[in-house]
Amino acid sequence: MSGLKDFLSAIPIGESRSPRRGEHRVRALVFDTYGTVCDFYGPMTRQFERFARERGEECDAHVMTVAWRTAYAMSCFQQAATESEFSPLRQIQRANLEKVMNEHYPAPVSPEELNQLTTVWDRLDPWPDTVEGLHRLKGQAIIAPVSNGNYIDMVNLARYAGLPWDIILGSSVAGMYKPHPDAYLKSIAALNLPPEEVCMVAAHQAELPYAAGHGMQTAFIMRPDEFGGITKPRDPEPGKPYLDAAEIYPEGDWTYITDSFIDLAEQIRQS
Amino acid sequence: MSGLKDFLSAIPIGESRSPRRGEHRVRALVFDTYGTVCDFYGPMTRQFERFARERGEECDAHVMTVAWRTAYAMSCFQQAATESEFSPLRQIQRANLEKVMNEHYPAPVSPEELNQLTTVWDRLDPWPDTVEGLHRLKGQAIIAPVSNGNYIDMVNLARYAGLPWDIILGSSVAGMYKPHPDAYLKSIAALNLPPEEVCMVAAHQAELPYAAGHGMQTAFIMRPDEFGGITKPRDPEPGKPYLDAAEIYPEGDWTYITDSFIDLAEQIRQS
Repeated sequence: MSGLKDFLSAIPIGESRSPRRGEHRVRALVFDTYGTVCDFYGPMTRQFERFARERGEECDAHVMTVAWRTAYAMSCFQQAATESEFSPLRQIQRANLEKVMNEHYPAPVSPEELNQLTTVWDRLDPWPDTVEGLHRLKGQAIIAPVSNGNYIDMVNLARYAGLPWDIILGSSVAGMYKPHPDAYLKSIAALNLPPEEVCMVAAHQAELPYAAGHGMQTAFIMRPDEFGGITKPRDPEPGKPYLDAAEIYPEGDWTYITDSFIDLAEQIRQS
Repeated sequence: MSGLKDFLSAIPIGESRSPRRGEHRVRALVFDTYGTVCDFYGPMTRQFERFARERGEECDAHVMTVAWRTAYAMSCFQQAATESEFSPLRQIQRANLEKVMNEHYPAPVSPEELNQLTTVWDRLDPWPDTVEGLHRLKGQAIIAPVSNGNYIDMVNLARYAGLPWDIILGSSVAGMYKPHPDAYLKSIAALNLPPEEVCMVAAHQAELPYAAGHGMQTAFIMRPDEFGGITKPRDPEPGKPYLDAAEIYPEGDWTYITDSFIDLAEQIRQS
């Protein structure tokens, strides 16, 4: 992941810290979506397994899912770091999948099959607390995705998963991928709110310093099943490797820390 | 309204005609909002009446409402025709209200009162068929406002009126007001659909030639109570003046013509 670090080091993190709980009202909540609102690991892994089974072939679906998801993040970080021309996320996903299949799948895959497999990004399952939690949060504030998914990706996913967004913000509003500052700042500007009244919700702790750096409130959602539950254990055994990409336990001074949107709604109600 | 005609003549209408019913699928419906989805006349007129009553003054609330609504349309057309810098609609509304009050209200009004009166754009009532109709249409296609209201205006209105949009498109997506081509074309592009699979829904017939000109399907919704029911009667009496701004009876070859969103859903289902 050293390429990742190089890309990220090129993107400025602001100077602010997360506001403390109760310091400001929460007028809007904006959500990382892939992994935070929906589980990508389960649906993708099951799709790869089914694909191989139907063709009578074998593959390591876990490796393929993690490789595809990592390539997605790397592509977005690279676009953000280089401020290169905005390209549709669907094309990025499709191109990355082709590389993943070439590297990890034992047989040739047709363009039509690649197109079909890519649509799994429209059919990610919400976490068990997601839909009820979003409805509760919507009773308290404006709710919107600030995802690297483009407008149509977020519409398709919301219709599949029943996500009651007030508005779709994020990459398409900004013409730029996270964690480029525009992705946050143009989304906040669309709401005509000061950043300290907007709370960024994410299960990837690496995202929150950017949100805090722009003065936003931050909510870190623990999702231990991110990456299929094989990420960093809370008490790692010495010498045993684990995947650290998702940073799934809280290490920062975030405004809210919880493991469910339902509890987040309750914490905000009480603050 | 000669100024209006001058502005509109500067904005190109495309060459296409509305596709015929059943010629293409309807994958998305995009809606003019002020007047088509929500009634502006009733809430504004009642607000002006209440304002004057509470201050023990008198005003012609009908004239003020029509003047404010007309000034809004003129401002948007002017920005569209001149491609001038995009300015927040809330500021435009506020500035136009100040002029309306100066011209039509018998007493001075404070800046705070002007700010408060301007918020009526967030509290427009849906027409009786709107909410049920939108839910039915959402079962068949993506639904979104393509309004001159900005993102936050549309969020506020949707939350007040219970409008179940999938995504908010229109002026903010385009950085341009209707009927500038960008307002339609960038909204369609956000959905990644061909224009002939997107249907523009409007109660203002003047809007539909632009939508048709870009190849979109068109649905004309008759709203006889637009402008408080004092617009062009179906059989006007010779010599008797009427307000023609809303063009509330069908005169064009639109894909769908109806007087309710519920019936529109049924017509689309059958086509």
